[in-house]
Amino acid sequence: MSADPSTAEEIMAGVHHALREYGYADLTMQDIADACSKSKSLLHYHYDTKEDLLVAFLDHLITTFERCVEAGRDRPATERLVEFIAWFGFDPDETDREHFHIALLELRSQGPFNDRIRSRLQRSDRVFRDTVAEIIEQGIEEGVFEPVDVTETAALLVATLDGARTRQITLGELDVDGDTYTRTVARTLIDRVVDPILVDGVELPDVSSVEVLLPRDEPVAVPAVDDSPSTGDDR
Amino acid sequence: MSADPSTAEEIMAGVHHALREYGYADLTMQDIADACSKSKSLLHYHYDTKEDLLVAFLDHLITTFERCVEAGRDRPATERLVEFIAWFGFDPDETDREHFHIALLELRSQGPFNDRIRSRLQRSDRVFRDTVAEIIEQGIEEGVFEPVDVTETAALLVATLDGARTRQITLGELDVDGDTYTRTVARTLIDRVVDPILVDGVELPDVSSVEVLLPRDEPVAVPAVDDSPSTGDDR
Repeated sequence: MSADPSTAEEIMAGVHHALREYGYADLTMQDIADACSKSKSLLHYHYDTKEDLLVAFLDHLITTFERCVEAGRDRPATERLVEFIAWFGFDPDETDREHFHIALLELRSQGPFNDRIRSRLQRSDRVFRDTVAEIIEQGIEEGVFEPVDVTETAALLVATLDGARTRQITLGELDVDGDTYTRTVARTLIDRVVDPILVDGVELPDVSSVEVLLPRDEPVAVPAVDDSPSTGDDR
Repeated sequence: MSADPSTAEEIMAGVHHALREYGYADLTMQDIADACSKSKSLLHYHYDTKEDLLVAFLDHLITTFERCVEAGRDRPATERLVEFIAWFGFDPDETDREHFHIALLELRSQGPFNDRIRSRLQRSDRVFRDTVAEIIEQGIEEGVFEPVDVTETAALLVATLDGARTRQITLGELDVDGDTYTRTVARTLIDRVVDPILVDGVELPDVSSVEVLLPRDEPVAVPAVDDSPSTGDDR
């Protein structure tokens, strides 16, 4: 049975916290219960299995991302594109985000063996590529991007940013051309792929200064409500 | 104690086979022993722990890659670059390679928690980026590539190809602009990043027709020698 919105958000925040703390492979329902101060039986009341809960969590991440994209639709395409690129970037001291993405990487490696997880990974991939494609289409309409094949451009951008992030989180602090992997690749991607499709005279905002409105992998704000103790009939 | 070259190659082929078959997380020394028809005690004689064996395997993969790069150094830079890009590509029916790379992805997610594994991942990353940088430098000297920043170009290419591969293997058969993820991204990478650095009049070989001389993740040919039974003093 689905949890009510506020309980669901607390549980999702618990999954997020527990993944960061324990990784994916060793994660237990008890870890998640502890992380959101709920009982394990309450978790099982809403989500039959750990897999059900993780699948709900992936859906939640994607939906949160989609809502943020929706909320930013009225901004100029150049800003939106640079924000998307910046969103993949990591500062070296963002240890929590790094841990979370390592856990997601473990989870992604289950894609081939788990239909439900794979279908969410595919959904996430489509949402990412559709978002970039939509931003580039918007830019073409605004007259700031040259007409290009938006589908292949989107695939290139998403693959590149994902690859840089995976390399940064698995390799640790590694100097790549005087910066982190994600920053070096973001800068080069802008210089080599994005700048060439800009209409003459159009300038991009600086990637390091752009305000990232997309969820920084903190998709859930634990609502500051309902301090009442959780019970089995909390639905 | 290190194994002699032929025994070591058989064991490395066994690790390769076992990773493909069982993945990384559940892999046991017994699985590897079975995969190379050796005894578990022989494996332990040469490699104290499973970690020692996996670290040796990663070193072996990297060294094999380096030797193949070395052997292809006399070829034109355009061919070498397209070969490197093609090397990351997957046909949809390459199930064995897919399984192997899924296991490597699991292993990569151990990078942050295991210094010895991380140092090999870092070595592999440097070898990849140095190879691309060297190829582009060669092309600049040959007069086929415009002078560009080779370090950042190499980081961009490696991140992009890695990202496309990770997405393809985790997402399964997914149509990306009418082709697989790796092929769509390879084609777009060539159009958007490589073509623009070609000197006027220079043409690249077609990525789908290039002969890949780099090891197709089958770095070890099990030598067709030594059918004698393995014993504990086989060194």
